[in-house]
Amino acid sequence: MKHMKNILKYGAGLLLSLLTPCSMAANELSSPNGNLVFNLEVEQGTPQYTLYYKGQPIILTSRLGLVMEEADLSEDFVITDVASSSFDETWQPVWGEYSNIRNHYNELAVTLTQEKQRHPRTVIIRARLYNDGLGFRYELPVQESMNYLIVKDELTEFNLTGDHTFYCMPGDYDTNEFAYTTAPISNIQSNMAERIKKKSYESKAEGLTVQTPLMIKTTDGLYINIHEAALVDYAGMLLNVDDKTYKLNAHLTPDKLGKKGYLQLPCHTPWRTIIVSDDARDVLASQLILNLNDPCTYEDTSWIKPMKFMGVWWEMFIGNGGTWAYSDYYKAKPGVTDYTQIEPNGRHRAHTEHVKEYIDFASEHGIDAVLVEGWNEGWEDWCSYRKERQFLFNKPYPDFDVTGLQQYAANKGVKLMMHHETAANASDYERQLDQAFQYMVDHGYNAVKTGYVGYIIPRSEYHSSQWMNNHYIHVARRAADYGVMINSHEAVRPTGLCRTYPNWMAQESARGGEFETMGGNDPDHTTILPFTRLKGGPMDYTPGIFETRMSYYGDGKKNERVHTTLVKQMALFVTMPSPIQMAADLPSNYQRFPDAFQFIKEVPVDWADSHYLEAEPGDYITVARKAKDQDAWFIGAITDENPRTATISFDFLPEGKKYIATIYADGDDADWDTNPQSYQIKKVVVSKKSKLKQRLAPSGGLAIAMYEGDKSTTKGLKEIK
Amino acid sequence: MKHMKNILKYGAGLLLSLLTPCSMAANELSSPNGNLVFNLEVEQGTPQYTLYYKGQPIILTSRLGLVMEEADLSEDFVITDVASSSFDETWQPVWGEYSNIRNHYNELAVTLTQEKQRHPRTVIIRARLYNDGLGFRYELPVQESMNYLIVKDELTEFNLTGDHTFYCMPGDYDTNEFAYTTAPISNIQSNMAERIKKKSYESKAEGLTVQTPLMIKTTDGLYINIHEAALVDYAGMLLNVDDKTYKLNAHLTPDKLGKKGYLQLPCHTPWRTIIVSDDARDVLASQLILNLNDPCTYEDTSWIKPMKFMGVWWEMFIGNGGTWAYSDYYKAKPGVTDYTQIEPNGRHRAHTEHVKEYIDFASEHGIDAVLVEGWNEGWEDWCSYRKERQFLFNKPYPDFDVTGLQQYAANKGVKLMMHHETAANASDYERQLDQAFQYMVDHGYNAVKTGYVGYIIPRSEYHSSQWMNNHYIHVARRAADYGVMINSHEAVRPTGLCRTYPNWMAQESARGGEFETMGGNDPDHTTILPFTRLKGGPMDYTPGIFETRMSYYGDGKKNERVHTTLVKQMALFVTMPSPIQMAADLPSNYQRFPDAFQFIKEVPVDWADSHYLEAEPGDYITVARKAKDQDAWFIGAITDENPRTATISFDFLPEGKKYIATIYADGDDADWDTNPQSYQIKKVVVSKKSKLKQRLAPSGGLAIAMYEGDKSTTKGLKEIK
Repeated sequence: MKHMKNILKYGAGLLLSLLTPCSMAANELSSPNGNLVFNLEVEQGTPQYTLYYKGQPIILTSRLGLVMEEADLSEDFVITDVASSSFDETWQPVWGEYSNIRNHYNELAVTLTQEKQRHPRTVIIRARLYNDGLGFRYELPVQESMNYLIVKDELTEFNLTGDHTFYCMPGDYDTNEFAYTTAPISNIQSNMAERIKKKSYESKAEGLTVQTPLMIKTTDGLYINIHEAALVDYAGMLLNVDDKTYKLNAHLTPDKLGKKGYLQLPCHTPWRTIIVSDDARDVLASQLILNLNDPCTYEDTSWIKPMKFMGVWWEMFIGNGGTWAYSDYYKAKPGVTDYTQIEPNGRHRAHTEHVKEYIDFASEHGIDAVLVEGWNEGWEDWCSYRKERQFLFNKPYPDFDVTGLQQYAANKGVKLMMHHETAANASDYERQLDQAFQYMVDHGYNAVKTGYVGYIIPRSEYHSSQWMNNHYIHVARRAADYGVMINSHEAVRPTGLCRTYPNWMAQESARGGEFETMGGNDPDHTTILPFTRLKGGPMDYTPGIFETRMSYYGDGKKNERVHTTLVKQMALFVTMPSPIQMAADLPSNYQRFPDAFQFIKEVPVDWADSHYLEAEPGDYITVARKAKDQDAWFIGAITDENPRTATISFDFLPEGKKYIATIYADGDDADWDTNPQSYQIKKVVVSKKSKLKQRLAPSGGLAIAMYEGDKSTTKGLKEIK
Repeated sequence: MKHMKNILKYGAGLLLSLLTPCSMAANELSSPNGNLVFNLEVEQGTPQYTLYYKGQPIILTSRLGLVMEEADLSEDFVITDVASSSFDETWQPVWGEYSNIRNHYNELAVTLTQEKQRHPRTVIIRARLYNDGLGFRYELPVQESMNYLIVKDELTEFNLTGDHTFYCMPGDYDTNEFAYTTAPISNIQSNMAERIKKKSYESKAEGLTVQTPLMIKTTDGLYINIHEAALVDYAGMLLNVDDKTYKLNAHLTPDKLGKKGYLQLPCHTPWRTIIVSDDARDVLASQLILNLNDPCTYEDTSWIKPMKFMGVWWEMFIGNGGTWAYSDYYKAKPGVTDYTQIEPNGRHRAHTEHVKEYIDFASEHGIDAVLVEGWNEGWEDWCSYRKERQFLFNKPYPDFDVTGLQQYAANKGVKLMMHHETAANASDYERQLDQAFQYMVDHGYNAVKTGYVGYIIPRSEYHSSQWMNNHYIHVARRAADYGVMINSHEAVRPTGLCRTYPNWMAQESARGGEFETMGGNDPDHTTILPFTRLKGGPMDYTPGIFETRMSYYGDGKKNERVHTTLVKQMALFVTMPSPIQMAADLPSNYQRFPDAFQFIKEVPVDWADSHYLEAEPGDYITVARKAKDQDAWFIGAITDENPRTATISFDFLPEGKKYIATIYADGDDADWDTNPQSYQIKKVVVSKKSKLKQRLAPSGGLAIAMYEGDKSTTKGLKEIK
């Protein structure tokens, strides 16, 4: 391919110098290591791009363009300016997988002008090419001819080279909690139709669509992840799929009036991101999406503290009768009903004495916080969309002594975590927001789990439409004013905004552990999530379910179960990193397995460094991480329904040191289906030169904790060579 | 008419005792004085009512019914219970036209049941019959078969007896600022089409519709006013008009998804109200709508203080270049732009020194407060609907020294009035609300003028749809938490909620004085408003424009003018009562007419008693009112384009007292068109026996201030006999 050879000859340089704006047909950009090349050109007035990896196109020539109600910004363009630059900086996140993140890219900003307009219109395409992928966005600078715009469509294409394998879920404007489909593009339609039985649509997007982050494995064995970064003041993006031509293009979430966004110049779209590698581990390690987000906006971040928590929560799922509601009187209205006068149902779990048991357990085992769901007025009359007030966020049930519990928890060195279920009534949540946060401050809370179950109020909105995307950010920013950390559930899936607003610690925004009681998560589910959902930010997956048999609270289904081994639940604490991580099972279940629970107690929630050792989407992940505040390393490995042998080289360890490793492995007879609770624990010594082969059971796992040892502590332990 | 004779024979009693629920065909209710009779019956399963006045039907048999998406509540009913009661209580409003208001009615509650349903459904029609009119509503008690409901339609009819005269404006979901149409029903369509040129639709309701309060004069000379009371958690009502059959029926404001309301049982509709009399003065004096609202919900109302105010406002309308905006840089964004760095336009009026001039003037003349519009960031980039943040409510422009002005005003004994223009972005206003009110408290403000210009965000809503109706109440209630009084502009027209939330002092919600700079208000406009808009509550009409010639700020129209004489502007302070009343003209204009301004300085804004002396909608109003806190009486009289002689009998005055009356009258040569500023002032003595005939010029007025005199003060003054 002659054209590409020319480009490669220039290495990381740019082919711009010889071209004048007017005659310029192509504008090319290389990644710092030269592996990726981005080419932007205007063909008969229409902007388009192509992306190459190691000399081969991986995104075929793809259209760019925006269509506004007031202006068609998709054709009649000429290139009137080209600017290029490079950037290389290492920054320190408040928390995360790495203490230091390198943000290193070459940038191209191409100014496109519609010169035939009476007042010429200008759009800038800004592209940043990293070693691990591409980000580009549309920028609309201040100009005479446009000010307010309503988005009709974004035409951005991602044209694939063949019938690649997708790891995907169907497009929906309100939910991301689907089971994943793994299939060639040509088969995703029928496969998703089958998978939808596990979780039905809430607001299906028209046509054949998939959600992002979309993970792709090409027919050539390349790995591609398509997503967006910094979703601010814009609609969330789905992808339309042409399963005959393998062309994808942007599908913006409309509001319910059919408008896809309201813009004012100057403005820009989120970054459209394409992570690329021939090694799946690179996709997991990529920090491209964080890098494309703005730096932290808070001057002081000392109040943002990663934490592990337990909660009065799981016991409402597992069919033993626990309820969020205080009463069964289904006509109680928060703020209207006097809850002290209605009869309690006797199965309400968020009551003072029970919460104290959790506090005691958390205190005893060094768990930072206890979440309590069902503490506040409103759960009797569950609804969403149908009424303007569902919950009060400053009214505890009569059996929840908020002041007494604050004192009790403080004395035990444990924080309580607040819960704000909004029933998707975002407007009422905003109505109560200041009072809600002030109530938290007044009662010693510093973190809140928010929830958006149901259809959105304002009724013009979807979970992923523009107004809601701004709502979530508003909540995070306002929370920061009160020193509050956010763990949001059912919000739009993340796009790396936790870099900018690091108190937005984690989100759910995918099919979490709770679904194990509702038909289950497939054994490969958590081998896909880190390649998809987690690229946007941490997930509050709620791992650590040791008792894998249970019922479902909703309709009395009896034989629900976790689709992993016990050890895999432990490994998820490492493979699904989050600065706010739940040990989700009941204290009584942890008490039954104290030696295994020891790992959950020890595993950090914030990391200095991470090494992805083995990875294949849908199959397996093995990762080693170094704790941020101690000389300790942790490994998590998981596999899908197939047993496998993890092959771990410890060469990530520092030279000359020995570590005592506690290996938590599936028992030889372990199997998620037939014998999930079989595990074995052994203690060995490892060093940089060690290698380990360890079998993982079907849907099994492996968890290892390593602390530096010395001659006395390693004495008598076998060293792995 | 035999049937009616039977009813009249029973006088004020009820015809219920002899009827059993099952056989009952008709249920009748009389007003305390027997003049009105209400008849509710179920005809072939359909509920209907008839209203009689002095033996004649004034509302012909009219259908009742609600249609929900989940349940048709309009037919298949039988009457299963009937309850009747009487009520007579006198209550004291926090402010108003009267110190004491008698709430005296007979009530009928008819339970309708759909027995054929598997789970029978129940609706209660509750009717209250007063001497001055009828109120009825639908109540949906808690029941097995229904909980959440979405309103498809309300079928309530108001079937009129002939081709009566309407004083009306066309139906629109977003605005009430139309010029009134006065025409027989059969002609309103063409007349409204003509009138719409003065103010175009914002969101026209489909079909031939009119707004309420709707004033009607029957072909027999009866006066009828149709409106609603206590619009809470329900859509605002327009009326569909059949101009052939003279049938009206309810037209609820939908949201933009087409839903007319979201209800949960127990709930009820607002009261549908019909004020009736053969004397137009009774319509003005009627307190029926306040009576049908709930009592005040605040324990302490001592902080609610009626007030007169001036404002940095009118000078932005009258074409002398004043702007709300600090700068002409139309791309400044509040919260983003550093306003200290952008160039001021030099025509910004809300600047510290200028505001001090207002404070000085207000202090000198005993005006309670000064409103300042254009004090805060956001006016450069006026828009509505198009973006999520227009204004900041805690960010003054660089030239507005909020702290210094607070001190300055306090030293002068003057309050500053806050201004919150929301650009109809109710959701962002709620987002900022607590901070905005706290900012007011921190800076000594106790009242705010709110504005809702433009299309509503949340984008699913109209100004009069259910969510917004609850929004206004939320703002009023939250304001009360901060001790703040509200004067809302462009909100839904009022329905007497100021009884329940008396800090919601006044609203605009009609075509106010500002329109004199935008094509003008017709000379009869203010003779119609008290029969229509004012039945819901006080209006911030902004009277008192002395300089009647001006330009229009918007497009440079030069020859705008006030369509009244100067004296009529004074009289409006009495004929348009409001506890928050603006003296709207510039200080410099008041300085030119100090003797006339004296009346505005003296006229109270809160009243002990009111006597409507003369009234005819569209023609004239004469009213006398007693000040609440002093032995002083004030009279206002206005006329339409026709000159007339007001005939005033002072028999409302107490026995045996003499009052010194200052009479402000149109000059003999006054005429709104040719000589509006001609006036005469004379001082006389009046007593209970006095009678006065005083000519009012075309669109002229009359204003009288009366204080008790004694021998020394009345000496030398002529006494009117």
